[in-house]
Amino acid sequence: MLTGPKSVEMRSYSIPEISDDQILVKVEACGICGTDGHEYNRDPFGLAPVVLGHEGTGEIVKLGKNWTEDTAGRPLKVGDKIVTCILPCGKCDPCKNMPGRVNMCENVGVYGLIPDDDVHFNGFFGEYIVIRPGSTVFNVSDLTLDQRILVEPSAVVVHSLERAKTTGLLNFSSVVLVQGCGPIGLLQIATLRTMGIENIIALDGNDSRLEMARSMGAMKGINFTKYDGIEAIAEAVKAANNGHLADFVFQCTGVGAAGANAWKLVKRGGGLCEVGFFMDGGQSVINHHYDICNKEITAVGSWLYTPQDYVITFDFLKRAYGIGLPLTDLISHRFSLDNIVDAFETNVQMKGIKVAVIVE
Amino acid sequence: MLTGPKSVEMRSYSIPEISDDQILVKVEACGICGTDGHEYNRDPFGLAPVVLGHEGTGEIVKLGKNWTEDTAGRPLKVGDKIVTCILPCGKCDPCKNMPGRVNMCENVGVYGLIPDDDVHFNGFFGEYIVIRPGSTVFNVSDLTLDQRILVEPSAVVVHSLERAKTTGLLNFSSVVLVQGCGPIGLLQIATLRTMGIENIIALDGNDSRLEMARSMGAMKGINFTKYDGIEAIAEAVKAANNGHLADFVFQCTGVGAAGANAWKLVKRGGGLCEVGFFMDGGQSVINHHYDICNKEITAVGSWLYTPQDYVITFDFLKRAYGIGLPLTDLISHRFSLDNIVDAFETNVQMKGIKVAVIVE
Amino acid sequence: MLTGPKSVEMRSYSIPEISDDQILVKVEACGICGTDGHEYNRDPFGLAPVVLGHEGTGEIVKLGKNWTEDTAGRPLKVGDKIVTCILPCGKCDPCKNMPGRVNMCENVGVYGLIPDDDVHFNGFFGEYIVIRPGSTVFNVSDLTLDQRILVEPSAVVVHSLERAKTTGLLNFSSVVLVQGCGPIGLLQIATLRTMGIENIIALDGNDSRLEMARSMGAMKGINFTKYDGIEAIAEAVKAANNGHLADFVFQCTGVGAAGANAWKLVKRGGGLCEVGFFMDGGQSVINHHYDICNKEITAVGSWLYTPQDYVITFDFLKRAYGIGLPLTDLISHRFSLDNIVDAFETNVQMKGIKVAVIVE
Amino acid sequence: MLTGPKSVEMRSYSIPEISDDQILVKVEACGICGTDGHEYNRDPFGLAPVVLGHEGTGEIVKLGKNWTEDTAGRPLKVGDKIVTCILPCGKCDPCKNMPGRVNMCENVGVYGLIPDDDVHFNGFFGEYIVIRPGSTVFNVSDLTLDQRILVEPSAVVVHSLERAKTTGLLNFSSVVLVQGCGPIGLLQIATLRTMGIENIIALDGNDSRLEMARSMGAMKGINFTKYDGIEAIAEAVKAANNGHLADFVFQCTGVGAAGANAWKLVKRGGGLCEVGFFMDGGQSVINHHYDICNKEITAVGSWLYTPQDYVITFDFLKRAYGIGLPLTDLISHRFSLDNIVDAFETNVQMKGIKVAVIVE
Repeated sequence: MLTGPKSVEMRSYSIPEISDDQILVKVEACGICGTDGHEYNRDPFGLAPVVLGHEGTGEIVKLGKNWTEDTAGRPLKVGDKIVTCILPCGKCDPCKNMPGRVNMCENVGVYGLIPDDDVHFNGFFGEYIVIRPGSTVFNVSDLTLDQRILVEPSAVVVHSLERAKTTGLLNFSSVVLVQGCGPIGLLQIATLRTMGIENIIALDGNDSRLEMARSMGAMKGINFTKYDGIEAIAEAVKAANNGHLADFVFQCTGVGAAGANAWKLVKRGGGLCEVGFFMDGGQSVINHHYDICNKEITAVGSWLYTPQDYVITFDFLKRAYGIGLPLTDLISHRFSLDNIVDAFETNVQMKGIKVAVIVE
Repeated sequence: MLTGPKSVEMRSYSIPEISDDQILVKVEACGICGTDGHEYNRDPFGLAPVVLGHEGTGEIVKLGKNWTEDTAGRPLKVGDKIVTCILPCGKCDPCKNMPGRVNMCENVGVYGLIPDDDVHFNGFFGEYIVIRPGSTVFNVSDLTLDQRILVEPSAVVVHSLERAKTTGLLNFSSVVLVQGCGPIGLLQIATLRTMGIENIIALDGNDSRLEMARSMGAMKGINFTKYDGIEAIAEAVKAANNGHLADFVFQCTGVGAAGANAWKLVKRGGGLCEVGFFMDGGQSVINHHYDICNKEITAVGSWLYTPQDYVITFDFLKRAYGIGLPLTDLISHRFSLDNIVDAFETNVQMKGIKVAVIVE
Repeated sequence: MLTGPKSVEMRSYSIPEISDDQILVKVEACGICGTDGHEYNRDPFGLAPVVLGHEGTGEIVKLGKNWTEDTAGRPLKVGDKIVTCILPCGKCDPCKNMPGRVNMCENVGVYGLIPDDDVHFNGFFGEYIVIRPGSTVFNVSDLTLDQRILVEPSAVVVHSLERAKTTGLLNFSSVVLVQGCGPIGLLQIATLRTMGIENIIALDGNDSRLEMARSMGAMKGINFTKYDGIEAIAEAVKAANNGHLADFVFQCTGVGAAGANAWKLVKRGGGLCEVGFFMDGGQSVINHHYDICNKEITAVGSWLYTPQDYVITFDFLKRAYGIGLPLTDLISHRFSLDNIVDAFETNVQMKGIKVAVIVE
Repeated sequence: MLTGPKSVEMRSYSIPEISDDQILVKVEACGICGTDGHEYNRDPFGLAPVVLGHEGTGEIVKLGKNWTEDTAGRPLKVGDKIVTCILPCGKCDPCKNMPGRVNMCENVGVYGLIPDDDVHFNGFFGEYIVIRPGSTVFNVSDLTLDQRILVEPSAVVVHSLERAKTTGLLNFSSVVLVQGCGPIGLLQIATLRTMGIENIIALDGNDSRLEMARSMGAMKGINFTKYDGIEAIAEAVKAANNGHLADFVFQCTGVGAAGANAWKLVKRGGGLCEVGFFMDGGQSVINHHYDICNKEITAVGSWLYTPQDYVITFDFLKRAYGIGLPLTDLISHRFSLDNIVDAFETNVQMKGIKVAVIVE
């Protein structure tokens, strides 16, 4: 349990009894998200004491009798592997007025970001988690452990891909630039490759990440540190694409300046998806005339995901592995629950791609 | 003929003979666009000597025998009233690869922005204009003179409306904010009202323009000069809309800061159309996290129009007049061709809404 | 209360106490739908005994204290006028997997089609109706009585318009043919006119209905009884539209053959919305090669409406009245509750357009 | 040269001189389309005498000096491999009014369906073909011979996939049924698999074609000859998909009854693409209430392809081969030009999948 900034305590509670509306899940593993790192470092959300861990998966050990099927209508039984998804409040304006877009909920709930209470088993960085009535639960027994660890970040990029598809600008011949090759950018490349897009250009400042981008399906990689300013980067994109800018850009970094640069890399009539700024990357300067109006750009923001996106994600993961993309390589570090502090520190220092805690 | 900054000369040429592929048109009237004003003031495009005037209309006096029908397939004969539209080059990348989006052409041609040459009759600020082979010409004999003067600026807002419709976010109950109540913003309000949108909020710094916005169909007007900063303006929008931001914003000003403000006035999951920045309004500062990603905005730029938009525009004008919108009031000043310098000066000093030159 | 085919009984129950989760509504009026007529005639759905009436509106007389706002978030108080909407089950596959399309629910509930039970006050053909917990309720105090009577059928055509808009084929210059000028077809014409479409062609076999179509906004009317076969009707459409078929067709009849004919009236690349077949109109013969593939038609079915469509509908009604469409004329007959048998008989004999029961 | 039904003559002409606007191409290979078979059999289009062959590819041997680049802007030189695409007339209503949909042209021209004239070299079933001014030509030197033979039929399914994508109903988790496993159906399966769709159900009456469907990416195959009637087939689809009908159906047969059946296999809220009826498959009976309205289906027809689709197709072919789909197996028979009569007969008797003529 995180009790304050950089302060983690192991606490023991007896395995709880569950009601007819609850599920007791033995945790198997959980990835560490950038948000977890921030919370570990400084508790910016003021959740402590809290059991973190929202990219988790586990096995049902006790199943309340009112649970007979998962959110997608598939049967549930003891022994099944599950993941959970967001819980919209159902009461705010977006919940009332945009029923297909529950990711827009103003008060969205997530296991692993619930402050400690009488239940205690509220996050995946523990041996057990208790699923509450009304939760969104998916039976993913047909996925491997690695696939299940990757469900949550994959749902982020599946959602952004769906948002991008609404522009009508993505097809087999599209030239797509992915800006930023952290876990989100790399998974974004994998979604594009999985949907048959051949012409993917990766943009990052780190050659080893660009190498990984190629293994995920990027045709070319551009290391922006070798270019002086956005005009030079734009020229590099053109050089990599027969003289043209990209048909579509996915902005997958959390850096303010990158947000502004993204617009400069899209061709006339092209599109852009802003997926990376999950944390406030700060302000940046754009020119609405040249960047949006004159080029007639179509741009979409992408935020979180919906339970429907989870179903799409399961199929994405099967297909991506099916065509040989090395998604497992994204899990660069694995720690036991006893070494969770090391896991947090590895995440915070951005040493690897994705850090996972494996619970024995 | 504009021969240099603020230098206008009347020149006489004999009425030309035309070839079988040309049309000789007696000019009736032509609106003055902001672009004309800029060109008059400083010749930023380096066109002089040039006969300006692209928002024009006239009557066919001689018709080359190879012209039998207009661009929409309707018959053409001497005496018909016509307007012209943009001429895409057909050779640049956008022309080749996006055949339905000729407004994206990198070398688009427009009568009234063609430097003087042997033909001389190249713009609508003259007594005659010669239509060249391959031009886009529409028979608009079923429109009134005022409607014909308004075709070109109306096509701008019809195109932006079509762009906005692709987001799927506009319907009878949408609350739409129009930022900027110059000719484009006022016509944008008229398109929205004509498509049945009741809840339109106009935003401008001038009360008389806001009054005009109401006559075009806006339900409410907000004078931003009465509020201190964008947060206060956003609160004013909420106050005008039961506590909510706008479902959709049309940005119809040419001011850099307004571009940045527009994002702050859209609600979560809403949309934005950037239509106003026909001239470079300068840079502005946005926050990609809060403005696009977290709110999951769908944004579209809008640039010029296509010949197809012209056909849509003719019907818009009929319908807008049909429901009683006072579009004619947009033509605030009328000058004769002899007084064209006064007309330019009136435009440049932004004294009215739309200045028209009426050719006897 | 309908107790069997053509058997209506007045029954008296004492005005009920309500729980904190219920609302007691004094009925003001309720339209009669074709479905009501069928049910009155033969009880095909086996509901009897049942209080029919689902196109109703009334005034809140008692408000359970747990009701503070309506489904759209507006405050509710005693004295407010309300309408109700469909109740999705929340459990079937469509409810689980298509959260924005609750009209696809396989077990949708509607007041006025609930068999009599202990509550008794289940339909709008009575003096009172009791709103159950979890219902969809809208405060429509800002609509007139006539507007409120028209909410339910208007929501049908607002939904079909939204479906049609997804094809991207509707704009100010579209030539739209509406097939069938009963209440649904006439309201469909009104929605099109309200969204600024000028070129509407009405098709029906009854001249007085075609006259009404013109008052709702149709530019032209074609009486198909004057033509021999679909080829001749198609020629009549071309004659009414400069030699072209329609850009878009709304099929608003309940006749099988009309469904087949609709495809023949759409031009190459055009669209079609199948809205009329709320009752099984029987089979019909089409040619998939000529009707769909070769012309590359985009077709959408439309079924019921969602609570979101209700909000859109309220604004449609305000706007349609605002531009002077005589929607009130659609309510061709008004009966008191005492004369409900006459009201049913008038509906069944298709003597008028829309029959309403006004409850004093 | 086909001189009449089942009458093929070899004729020799000297290799032509070409003008500055023409290209002389040495033919390498050309597939036989069902249309060719019909033409060979009975000359239904009345083209004879004619050099057939429109699914062809060859090498530039002489290049008119006015040709410097292909339709997509890539350089052209002697020795490059090319394919050609449709030639819209530019004058009919669809050409004028739907510039992005030139496949809707009412007078579309295709090499291989041009009656013999003074040029003689008008089709790909010959040693040479002469490309006329204004033609659509693509440099495909980066594709293998087999890929080039498959360009034309692949463009058909790429276009139908683009049409299907406009419905917004296709994503990684979609369950898609492909009805008919001839060359078009098999290629349609390959496009779906290439875009990452895992859950594809093939429907055909021939087990060996179903086996081939599996190799192209179908998860399951249903042999409809084992079921009695469409209800039983629908049950078989449900059995193959956890009790549900398909999210989307591609109708890829040329049989009238199949067109009617397709509607029965789509779930509520699902979609359908009518791609197969390139020849008139005859009439069939549907029920508009149950098949379209009540299920709220979104249906799109698909006809031919556009030059833009060709560019998408080149990338599809690279990607499909890249993920190991055995598209080459679709070319089941290869004949030399001398044996073209055997090639036609093999096609007509539907012995294989795709018959190609290889020109030495």
